[in-house]
Amino acid sequence: MLYPHKRSIRTDLALEAQEILYERDPAQKIPGVETLTRSTDNTRVTKVKIFHAEGSRQLGKPPGTYITIEAPNMRRGGHAINDEVAQVLTEEVSALANLGPEATIFVVGLGNWNATPDALGPRVVDNLMVTRHLFEYAPQELRGGLRSVAALAPGVLGLTGVETEEIVRGVVQRINPDLVIAVDALASRSLHRISTTVQLADSGIHPGSGVGNKRLGLTEDSLGVPIIAIGVPTVIHASTLAGDALELFSQALVSSNIATATELEAALPAYNQAEMLEQLLPTHWQGLFVTPKEIDALIADIARIIAGGLNAALHPGIEAGTGEHYLQ
Amino acid sequence: MLYPHKRSIRTDLALEAQEILYERDPAQKIPGVETLTRSTDNTRVTKVKIFHAEGSRQLGKPPGTYITIEAPNMRRGGHAINDEVAQVLTEEVSALANLGPEATIFVVGLGNWNATPDALGPRVVDNLMVTRHLFEYAPQELRGGLRSVAALAPGVLGLTGVETEEIVRGVVQRINPDLVIAVDALASRSLHRISTTVQLADSGIHPGSGVGNKRLGLTEDSLGVPIIAIGVPTVIHASTLAGDALELFSQALVSSNIATATELEAALPAYNQAEMLEQLLPTHWQGLFVTPKEIDALIADIARIIAGGLNAALHPGIEAGTGEHYLQ
Amino acid sequence: MLYPHKRSIRTDLALEAQEILYERDPAQKIPGVETLTRSTDNTRVTKVKIFHAEGSRQLGKPPGTYITIEAPNMRRGGHAINDEVAQVLTEEVSALANLGPEATIFVVGLGNWNATPDALGPRVVDNLMVTRHLFEYAPQELRGGLRSVAALAPGVLGLTGVETEEIVRGVVQRINPDLVIAVDALASRSLHRISTTVQLADSGIHPGSGVGNKRLGLTEDSLGVPIIAIGVPTVIHASTLAGDALELFSQALVSSNIATATELEAALPAYNQAEMLEQLLPTHWQGLFVTPKEIDALIADIARIIAGGLNAALHPGIEAGTGEHYLQ
Amino acid sequence: MLYPHKRSIRTDLALEAQEILYERDPAQKIPGVETLTRSTDNTRVTKVKIFHAEGSRQLGKPPGTYITIEAPNMRRGGHAINDEVAQVLTEEVSALANLGPEATIFVVGLGNWNATPDALGPRVVDNLMVTRHLFEYAPQELRGGLRSVAALAPGVLGLTGVETEEIVRGVVQRINPDLVIAVDALASRSLHRISTTVQLADSGIHPGSGVGNKRLGLTEDSLGVPIIAIGVPTVIHASTLAGDALELFSQALVSSNIATATELEAALPAYNQAEMLEQLLPTHWQGLFVTPKEIDALIADIARIIAGGLNAALHPGIEAGTGEHYLQ
Repeated sequence: MLYPHKRSIRTDLALEAQEILYERDPAQKIPGVETLTRSTDNTRVTKVKIFHAEGSRQLGKPPGTYITIEAPNMRRGGHAINDEVAQVLTEEVSALANLGPEATIFVVGLGNWNATPDALGPRVVDNLMVTRHLFEYAPQELRGGLRSVAALAPGVLGLTGVETEEIVRGVVQRINPDLVIAVDALASRSLHRISTTVQLADSGIHPGSGVGNKRLGLTEDSLGVPIIAIGVPTVIHASTLAGDALELFSQALVSSNIATATELEAALPAYNQAEMLEQLLPTHWQGLFVTPKEIDALIADIARIIAGGLNAALHPGIEAGTGEHYLQ
Repeated sequence: MLYPHKRSIRTDLALEAQEILYERDPAQKIPGVETLTRSTDNTRVTKVKIFHAEGSRQLGKPPGTYITIEAPNMRRGGHAINDEVAQVLTEEVSALANLGPEATIFVVGLGNWNATPDALGPRVVDNLMVTRHLFEYAPQELRGGLRSVAALAPGVLGLTGVETEEIVRGVVQRINPDLVIAVDALASRSLHRISTTVQLADSGIHPGSGVGNKRLGLTEDSLGVPIIAIGVPTVIHASTLAGDALELFSQALVSSNIATATELEAALPAYNQAEMLEQLLPTHWQGLFVTPKEIDALIADIARIIAGGLNAALHPGIEAGTGEHYLQ
Repeated sequence: MLYPHKRSIRTDLALEAQEILYERDPAQKIPGVETLTRSTDNTRVTKVKIFHAEGSRQLGKPPGTYITIEAPNMRRGGHAINDEVAQVLTEEVSALANLGPEATIFVVGLGNWNATPDALGPRVVDNLMVTRHLFEYAPQELRGGLRSVAALAPGVLGLTGVETEEIVRGVVQRINPDLVIAVDALASRSLHRISTTVQLADSGIHPGSGVGNKRLGLTEDSLGVPIIAIGVPTVIHASTLAGDALELFSQALVSSNIATATELEAALPAYNQAEMLEQLLPTHWQGLFVTPKEIDALIADIARIIAGGLNAALHPGIEAGTGEHYLQ
Repeated sequence: MLYPHKRSIRTDLALEAQEILYERDPAQKIPGVETLTRSTDNTRVTKVKIFHAEGSRQLGKPPGTYITIEAPNMRRGGHAINDEVAQVLTEEVSALANLGPEATIFVVGLGNWNATPDALGPRVVDNLMVTRHLFEYAPQELRGGLRSVAALAPGVLGLTGVETEEIVRGVVQRINPDLVIAVDALASRSLHRISTTVQLADSGIHPGSGVGNKRLGLTEDSLGVPIIAIGVPTVIHASTLAGDALELFSQALVSSNIATATELEAALPAYNQAEMLEQLLPTHWQGLFVTPKEIDALIADIARIIAGGLNAALHPGIEAGTGEHYLQ
């Protein structure tokens, strides 16, 4: 009712997009969307499948499978929880990727290595076990439980002068992988998701998503190869903090009988709350994303979790939960 | 009237502390406090002198001189503005320090080099021109317009297991400088101050201030040597964003005649608004500081400005505004 | 006479290859090779043009133009010498590149950013002013004295699992530059050349050259685009140190009348001295390259010189000798 | 006989000093020196105890215990060998340190973090588990198998303008540790010792030793606290490569009957060979130390081994060989 500003606040997470819809109308059915959940000790895994155009339109996400691993205790949670998240990631990537034994996988670390909150992708690539050069001429029977993995951090437009997509497509055309995995830092609308949520999607990376605001996309269509996008929220828009406070305050006013929801809505009509919020905010907030001050340590931890999880997902000889032993 | 939460929100800036008081009562006089301002093209310099205990108590700051250089365009403002800020810094440090020609200065870069928003001090030390080892045995006439400068980034308690103050005092006792300059990243209550404001103070560094929450202090009393603290806000408490939104929203409600200030205050009594705000915020916000996602570039820029400004302030042979040519 | 081992000791420098031939027979003429020299205060510039196959065979270098800038005082020589070398580099690159006003240039920083002596290329790319993304859709008259420059450090095979050449060719095919400039760290046979010599060549990068031992090459033929290779020696083979000592010792023995050159040659026949040297050396020396312990500072300095020189060479609006003001 | 130059070539290793004496006269007895050896699968441990002044004078090392762990396969030898070396280090440090359960240990990482071959000490400090701040007020029974460990990398004179010894003494006076452990990169006279040899000594660090050429020392006398120095060779003097070649060549000439040892010695008298070697070498070799081009990876590996070994040596609750699990 009151909080349409959220619709206009950017999220890269399908799960958050869905939550926004349900907040507005908990009873609503979104056509062509299927949701499955499972849990482990410290994680909750939600799989949202968007089948057709109407669900896609309502959620603002292209059709595809979106898997969200939520682990609230992951933030600096110690080895045991990190290993558990890596293991869940391994299981979900394995199921989604469905790789043959001789598959070649190209892992792309998106983002800017000079900007810590955007450096997740490059850090994963740094840590990952890369094998393609060892196997180029080796027959499968000598590969010893390993698949062929290549990895590249292509940088960002401001560093290279070249669209990331151009670099990735150029390399894909030359090495012909069976699968591209793109790792990226995301924007979330909730502070509590930062470094506690991992999203997998088989619908690719789309313009404007991620911390660095891509101008082009990376999809199976544009690459000619299946792609799995792995993202972790590392920033939120500054105005989401303000919006959340505004929402909490409105609830307090209503429950204190100072104003009714109708009055509040009359004074601050739904259709323009988002703009009002923007206007209320000082110029310096516009377009500003923020990140916790511990971001360096958070990025280091998540990069290890994802690289470890991928090591075990991509190489049949590495047991789930032990991929971190093979970090570079 | 409505916003006592601000009193409880931590700021390291004397200027902000003063602003809060004036917001509450614009007509009030704070006894024993003197304020002077001057401007350059792109900066405003405010000098707040706190003379005695009552002003000190009201502002929550020890007696001393607090100089604030505000340069709203400094955030990635290009060479010209950066040089101007460095020059103003040089002038203010020179006036405050009042150094003799043979003075030895010990620059301490406080903070954690592994946490970008807290790494300002160590970066300044990295960039600074250090000369003490060259002059240890050289007579003044051979020093060629340079003073003796030593510099150290002592790390933080979590990295070394030693209180920063202990390391600094240990070194001060051995090298007997005439002045200590301590550079630190600060917390502000306003997002727009991040990387646009530089504070100089001759009252030292106090427990709990700075991004890393020192447990001990560095003052002329504890060191036995005069100290100038140079700080730049790099983080804000997450709840200040929420608090600012709450304030703006309240103003909108009052001006829309939905609720009177009195009603709002009755429902949300002043004395407990701070606690309410804390309760409204999710657990993960408690104690959380945030920083802009461009923090790496911001820290790099400010560190160069401060090191360049100090180079010219400390060495008579380096002209103001040219200190950046001598960065290491 | 005595020192055929040098033939077998690897050098990436055409000038050194030529010196070796002249040492063996100072009177000899190498057919199809033309040499020009010029000097500035602190540099000597030698241009060796190899016209046809016989000269190419004798020098062990493909036909092309090889320009060597020698600046013995460059090693940590201070701003003035560094600026002079950058200016000479600007002049020579400009002459060799002969760029039209709307040319697009793709600068490739070869080498391994995790291995300091091999990190020259990536560091140059870090420092370079990149503009292509600003101009993609801008007409020439709005470009303000700048050309379109893109830049990439493609990593090395061991980091990415992909041959460097594959990545570069992939990007070249997509962005269609008018010129590729490849910057690389080189191996020299003389310790004194490390960080004091810059070689430019229009014949490309060839397999086995550079610090990282490329397996494939980057040439105008393989890329379909002209290429200028810029290299600076940063390592020498450990056995060249031993070989040089052996040579000096032999000279001392001959001049002391302890042995004649004929006797020494009889005992250590020319044809197998190289092998003998290898055998004499402990196993751990085989294939070992060494670098001065100050390599971090040397690489930082040279990277700034080359990036500054390229800034001025590539952008008509940047005056020669001032390119360092535009470092990133 | 022929190789007195070695006496003048600097080594930080007591074992090498002893080897030089034995090469000159294999039958000689050095008075007041006792040598013990033991082996593990991949290491050889030699303990040299220098008891009195004559042995000290002959070896050029102060009295004390020097333990050398040699592990030729350690250079990039994989986890198993690294763990074995760390375990041997743990055993030897434990025996030498003989710590009480409540001891406080101060680990000092000597060297320059900006110069890779000299950065071993700072890297060990980065990786080490630091606990002193956790235990400052905790009684022993709550410490859970851990001792109180503080750690600092004090930088080098050129970075701080302060003698390292001054900083270390200043901190030691304030925190009163029971033991100081100083980790440093060393110079060796043999290329094959680089990153394959670890030396422990209880006689402290002396002026002129280490990669960075200390001007002052760190000894039990100067600190008032026992000190264990842990060093690993990371550089050799360039002239040692030349000297080794000269020696091998001389042997070849003698065995080929081209010259007798006597003739060679007559022509190149022992007393001035060292100077001759220096003169023979080009100016740029004078004072030059070199390091393998893989030095970044070597330093990273050794730092982990030493930090892991120290973790287990200093904390009774960490089992030998598992200290690497507690790296920071």
